[in-house]
Amino acid sequence: MNAVLPPGITREHFAALVADLQKVVGKAYVFTDTQWELPAYIDAYQTTPDEVHQPSAAVAPANTGELQRILEIARHYKAPLWTISTGKNFAYGGPAPRKAGYIVLDLKRMNRILEVNEKHGYAVVEPGVSYFDLYRHLQKIGSKLWIDCAAPGWGGVLPNTLEHGVGYTPYGDHMTMQCGMEVMLADGTVVQTGMGALPGSQTTNLYKYGFGPWVDGLFTQSNFGVVTKMGVWLMQEPPGYRPYMITFEREDDLHAITEALRPLKVNMLIPAAAFTVGLIWEATVQISRRDYYTGKGAIPDSVRKKIAKDLRIGEWNVYGALYGPPPIMDNNWEVIHDAFAKIPGAKVYFDADRHKNDAAWSYRKKLGAGIPNMTEYSMSNWIPNGAHVDFSPISPVTGVDAIKQYELIRDRCNKAGFDYIGEFAIGWRDMHHIYTTIFDRNDPEQKARAYKLFLELVEVAADAGYGEYRTHLDFMDNIAATYNWNDHALLRLREKIKDRVDPLGILSPGKMGIWPKSMRKGRA
Amino acid sequence: MNAVLPPGITREHFAALVADLQKVVGKAYVFTDTQWELPAYIDAYQTTPDEVHQPSAAVAPANTGELQRILEIARHYKAPLWTISTGKNFAYGGPAPRKAGYIVLDLKRMNRILEVNEKHGYAVVEPGVSYFDLYRHLQKIGSKLWIDCAAPGWGGVLPNTLEHGVGYTPYGDHMTMQCGMEVMLADGTVVQTGMGALPGSQTTNLYKYGFGPWVDGLFTQSNFGVVTKMGVWLMQEPPGYRPYMITFEREDDLHAITEALRPLKVNMLIPAAAFTVGLIWEATVQISRRDYYTGKGAIPDSVRKKIAKDLRIGEWNVYGALYGPPPIMDNNWEVIHDAFAKIPGAKVYFDADRHKNDAAWSYRKKLGAGIPNMTEYSMSNWIPNGAHVDFSPISPVTGVDAIKQYELIRDRCNKAGFDYIGEFAIGWRDMHHIYTTIFDRNDPEQKARAYKLFLELVEVAADAGYGEYRTHLDFMDNIAATYNWNDHALLRLREKIKDRVDPLGILSPGKMGIWPKSMRKGRA
Repeated sequence: MNAVLPPGITREHFAALVADLQKVVGKAYVFTDTQWELPAYIDAYQTTPDEVHQPSAAVAPANTGELQRILEIARHYKAPLWTISTGKNFAYGGPAPRKAGYIVLDLKRMNRILEVNEKHGYAVVEPGVSYFDLYRHLQKIGSKLWIDCAAPGWGGVLPNTLEHGVGYTPYGDHMTMQCGMEVMLADGTVVQTGMGALPGSQTTNLYKYGFGPWVDGLFTQSNFGVVTKMGVWLMQEPPGYRPYMITFEREDDLHAITEALRPLKVNMLIPAAAFTVGLIWEATVQISRRDYYTGKGAIPDSVRKKIAKDLRIGEWNVYGALYGPPPIMDNNWEVIHDAFAKIPGAKVYFDADRHKNDAAWSYRKKLGAGIPNMTEYSMSNWIPNGAHVDFSPISPVTGVDAIKQYELIRDRCNKAGFDYIGEFAIGWRDMHHIYTTIFDRNDPEQKARAYKLFLELVEVAADAGYGEYRTHLDFMDNIAATYNWNDHALLRLREKIKDRVDPLGILSPGKMGIWPKSMRKGRA
Repeated sequence: MNAVLPPGITREHFAALVADLQKVVGKAYVFTDTQWELPAYIDAYQTTPDEVHQPSAAVAPANTGELQRILEIARHYKAPLWTISTGKNFAYGGPAPRKAGYIVLDLKRMNRILEVNEKHGYAVVEPGVSYFDLYRHLQKIGSKLWIDCAAPGWGGVLPNTLEHGVGYTPYGDHMTMQCGMEVMLADGTVVQTGMGALPGSQTTNLYKYGFGPWVDGLFTQSNFGVVTKMGVWLMQEPPGYRPYMITFEREDDLHAITEALRPLKVNMLIPAAAFTVGLIWEATVQISRRDYYTGKGAIPDSVRKKIAKDLRIGEWNVYGALYGPPPIMDNNWEVIHDAFAKIPGAKVYFDADRHKNDAAWSYRKKLGAGIPNMTEYSMSNWIPNGAHVDFSPISPVTGVDAIKQYELIRDRCNKAGFDYIGEFAIGWRDMHHIYTTIFDRNDPEQKARAYKLFLELVEVAADAGYGEYRTHLDFMDNIAATYNWNDHALLRLREKIKDRVDPLGILSPGKMGIWPKSMRKGRA
């Protein structure tokens, strides 16, 4: 790749800036080499050309003191920084910045587990702590606390929460389990939110709301500050864990499945998120497409049936788990079983009913107990040079909405030549529908098709009243534009805050459609 | 009372302002009469003289259109508005404004229940909807949804949530159960937060976080906007409800009680908040002090023992409830019973074990099932002309902290001549310790003592690392001053936001210590 410069910064100023950064973190932690270093900050999964999100440099501070000085340098040069933590946010942009030339602010070295509190059930972590890190640490100290992780275990505890990520145990709503933050503002001020603002506070990580307006949410999916520390509540190991899987034979069972799940979820008979996983999603982690089909376009029905039979899966596959002492698990299972037994062809599997080498079952079983792994990441092996981009609209938990979303996406992705690969994560009162377009990252034509499909899906979903909860860099502006009620009133409020807390616009310009004044374009 | 003017506004401008307000809402809904109208906006429970919080006027819009025009008038005259909804926030300021002369913006007429969604379990309410209103509406339509109410049922669903209030059912953390807001900013802009920013959204009240920075928390305990609509999640009626009470004989049982409660709460064996209620708090709702003791100072031990015996209560009384199908209730009760049976003298009561006319039991039983009532409000009858002000520090759930907080307050309130009247509300990982000073509102000397005691408690609690979660108008600045980490970094951030979203400072100046620029004093 050819070197690029931060927007609006001359070659001379850039050289001076890099020298200044080196004085802060040392030469080893300022990355500018386009051959050996900067490719680590390219998103292998983007549907646009690499140059679109190519950074000019990356800098990795070791602590908040260094971070403070980096922000000072960025303010001096008016240089845009793009904050990442573990950089593993794949399908949503990975480590790459929103625009070419940004300097990636890589917090991977700030990876200390600052506290594990066994008594109250929480940990305090820095941005670079991965799920694997926290899990291994807890194992090492003999803790009885569980973590709740994202599907790929190399993701970060803090950044996944900031991105409103969800997990697989009863503590899967990561935002709800967040308690206490330390944030550095663009001017270098360090803020403790909530109870932490009281010096010597005894309850920083025990009570969320503090005294006065609760600001923590402001720093999620945000470019208003850099979160440098966060408390996360951890679940006590339950007295029992019994994961199950229920398979369904027909595509349109989705309606009945979703109707069955709603009351079970609202009443917490299924305490963790339930997942309704589509056939191909299940297949991607176990086989490659070419094992079954080498044609173009969507996989034909006869082949789907063969895959289902071979892998002992259904068109839809519901994953859930029982937690607690055996009598409670037994009681809940009775209700759950009755709800699904009504659907013809439903088959129930517990752990003893699945093969030891059944990859899909194994990793879901781990995730439900907060054991990080990388199995789902292997979905990229579905096709050669596989990459994927995730479209994630939020939906009410109803059969009508599930079918509507499914058909809306399936028809369009099939038409665009892609398989429907999707799952529904059913939370307390909503579903995250995750549709992933798997494409060949070496095929510009496929990438262009995937990109175009995505934009189309954003539009049709918005027209039907469905908005996305998270997205890839490439689509942030498009999705932000759909949240336009009352002439973008919410975006305008956020821009007011942005202008006040980061007047020079140095922090992650364009994140989720929020641009600093100097880079703001006219809105339609 | 004598008429007062809004700060910085001349008599002539005030007359014009009132005339302008009358044009918007009609003469009937602008209140300026100091004899008949404005006394309704005095806080009968304040420890300072009435003049300190006497409004110049009050105005009650019927809808957001009128509200918008009121804000326009306030901006024109630079007049401070103090937003209240039901105005029942007693012990924390009631309907009175922070400073004399403010105009009370009374939202009581905006009291529509906009939606009840039985399927998904939520309601959408305007600010003036009380717990009684919502409860009666649900009864009327035959809904199976429960509400979760504050102890006095005339409080408001929306404003109690905004004040970070807590309740008595498993949905008692009101902030967690909030989903979707409509907010009017000082400039009259109406903002839908979260998913509501997507026109035609299907998930406004189903998914909290939306796309981009989550702003809802900003408008809680806040003067950044006027919340005009809010979604609140409602619990499905459970298949069983079995409240219980456990009494304990000795003051220092508090340590063992709290240690027993922590794991039960963290593991959700007690799904709603548990309450550890002190002897006198229990007594206040059933008897008057003079029935037992007419001396000054704290009630002597012999009299406490007599009260305990007569009312069949303990020095401490734990209230909790089982929810769910009988097998689950049975299982959980076994664990709970074992945990408390270890404490010598513990006595267990279920509904059949308490008298029908036992007021304390009856109202707690109702609250645990979301049935609003006014019983606890009668604690003011403890002494003639009784009023109370509540000191509410947050604490970790440990025996050491409970005893420390108890002794810290008990010794000082006894010394100041007041009974210790307190309870601990044990949430998921924290306790709200509520100590209420009951004083004679017609006795200036008692009020002065209560005021002085409160300030002392704020100081000693802060020194021990305990901060308050909410407070009376009179103490907002004092408590805000204790949250001063890094030279008030959090307050400075909030002030930045305040200056940007309400540059003229018309909305609730001084709320929780946040003042607009023009009224901001230097900080030490």
